[in-house]
Amino acid sequence: MDEGVLTAEECWALLRTHELGRLAFHLGDEVHLAPINYAVDGDTLLFRTAEGSKLLGVEMNPDVAFEIDEVDEHRARSVILRGVARHLGEDEEHRVENLPLRPWVSGLRYDVVEIRPTGISGRSFELDRPWLHMLPGG
Amino acid sequence: MDEGVLTAEECWALLRTHELGRLAFHLGDEVHLAPINYAVDGDTLLFRTAEGSKLLGVEMNPDVAFEIDEVDEHRARSVILRGVARHLGEDEEHRVENLPLRPWVSGLRYDVVEIRPTGISGRSFELDRPWLHMLPGG
Repeated sequence: MDEGVLTAEECWALLRTHELGRLAFHLGDEVHLAPINYAVDGDTLLFRTAEGSKLLGVEMNPDVAFEIDEVDEHRARSVILRGVARHLGEDEEHRVENLPLRPWVSGLRYDVVEIRPTGISGRSFELDRPWLHMLPGG
Repeated sequence: MDEGVLTAEECWALLRTHELGRLAFHLGDEVHLAPINYAVDGDTLLFRTAEGSKLLGVEMNPDVAFEIDEVDEHRARSVILRGVARHLGEDEEHRVENLPLRPWVSGLRYDVVEIRPTGISGRSFELDRPWLHMLPGG
């Protein structure tokens, strides 16, 4: 496959096979970025967080972006979505119960945040990496 | 290693062994996210871009965040930095010449952007993933 655009179906298929993504969010005037463990729930993503900054950030400004990618020797694929984050109330937290979504580090109280995509795009491209031999182990 | 905080030295060592990261940037009122191929140059990162939105975004607002991570079966490590992006002039583009930094897809004109970190942090943690058997291939 040469460089190409993934269909929405291909994007969702990739989203369902991964569990680690990165969330970009506003925190006041700043842009912040954090790895998150997520799961797909219908046409939304859910993640748990115990950290103050992510929760505070998305409650102040729900505009977020989210990314996953995978790279092998010859090809890279990435899916990016923009969306609206919402801190779920206790009456909705049951939505995570049947998902493969648990805190990576156990023992803390976690809140659940939903990301509802407003746009999703994905790319697949062959890698042109003539400098690979310059990397450690290359 | 249990959950722990990486030293700045460990963060830079990780940054030097990777080549793919994700850049979060402002585009007007929105937060955007994109995978980028980068290289370390002294105490800065450099990347090339041909895309309008990244370049436009950082020229309108240089506040950015950047992330790399690596995950194996038992452990995850991530490095996050916040910083200031600057579109290099032609007189500074020579800084990329000896770096392992080339466009993944050849044939386009690329501009060079520097990220000067204002803060850097890294975490390492054991994974507690009891649901691994639920994933495809798990």
